[in-house]
Amino acid sequence: MQEESITSFLDQLASSAPTPGGGSVAALCGAISAALGSMVANLTLGREKYRDVEPEVRAALERAEQLRQRFLGLIEQDIAAYGALSAAYRLPKSTVEEQAARSSQIQAALTGAAEAPLRMVEQARQALELCQALASIGNPNVISDVGVAAITAYAALESGALNVLINLKTMKDRELARGFFQRLSMAQEGADSLKQDILTAVRQKMDVG
Amino acid sequence: MQEESITSFLDQLASSAPTPGGGSVAALCGAISAALGSMVANLTLGREKYRDVEPEVRAALERAEQLRQRFLGLIEQDIAAYGALSAAYRLPKSTVEEQAARSSQIQAALTGAAEAPLRMVEQARQALELCQALASIGNPNVISDVGVAAITAYAALESGALNVLINLKTMKDRELARGFFQRLSMAQEGADSLKQDILTAVRQKMDVG
Repeated sequence: MQEESITSFLDQLASSAPTPGGGSVAALCGAISAALGSMVANLTLGREKYRDVEPEVRAALERAEQLRQRFLGLIEQDIAAYGALSAAYRLPKSTVEEQAARSSQIQAALTGAAEAPLRMVEQARQALELCQALASIGNPNVISDVGVAAITAYAALESGALNVLINLKTMKDRELARGFFQRLSMAQEGADSLKQDILTAVRQKMDVG
Repeated sequence: MQEESITSFLDQLASSAPTPGGGSVAALCGAISAALGSMVANLTLGREKYRDVEPEVRAALERAEQLRQRFLGLIEQDIAAYGALSAAYRLPKSTVEEQAARSSQIQAALTGAAEAPLRMVEQARQALELCQALASIGNPNVISDVGVAAITAYAALESGALNVLINLKTMKDRELARGFFQRLSMAQEGADSLKQDILTAVRQKMDVG
């Protein structure tokens, strides 16, 4: 999927094919956020003016690169998990035995289908925290790009969360579902105000209020 | 740019090259939103169950396809406008005449650099309104994708707005800047609550509260 052209990815997204869909989009938003984070770090490093924050910026760049790779991996993981779930739904259900086997396959596949977007939410939270750091140590000439990085990280977080919830809904093992809910809440907690704080800092540095 | 692979686009985004940057990302988010809108429409059309809304869904599909093409065009327009602005900043400024020529070139280029992201904001507002329609007429099995479409449309709107503001800041013709501000306010007005309303409707249809 990553080697597809943007046009071809969008064509596939727009089609009635089941993947890519909203899950892939969540991970792609995360990868975009991380790449913008790298850009800001790359435009800060090696400049005399920002020499005293160089170690922090270098660490931020490493972090951004790592996050981008994780998000790209999650695009594939999400498509694979969705494929497994679709295959389980297509299993035969004529006999009682078939129905039981199908149901247990669906339940197993739901775990994977919830795990992939949950990881996106968790990584998106990390990406937001990276944006917070970059808003203070990054080159102020590209501060609007820090803002766009925060906006896309938050879009990844919100989109991932919808995809977790839709899978948890049909999960029969409520104990398992509760564990997912807890991780989701933890990753989401305070994310909205974190995003707003970053955007306030960005607008102040842009001097547009 | 559209024919680049996703990996290569992200590599260029992450690099210290001036483009692509946050402006291209805003337009890409809009194109992603529109493509998801098309997907939802394509998964609704031709199904007996949704026959009575078929004309509305067909109109939504046409609108989504049109929006996607506009956003893709805006990626290129933004890169070209940014290139013109950078070129103006690189003009010589040794003599008073050179300074005057450079300044007038910069001011002319700023108009283009503000216009491209402003169109993104205006189109993103249209994309949000399309999502509102799809939340009510689209196939409820893909309602989470309507949610992701609304999230990415709003990300395009917010990101575009930051890119308009950064260009208006250095615009000397305050009358011209005021016109841009007015269009920006008009496109942004109520967008936040529109997005929240769509997400509330989506969560209700997902039955996750």
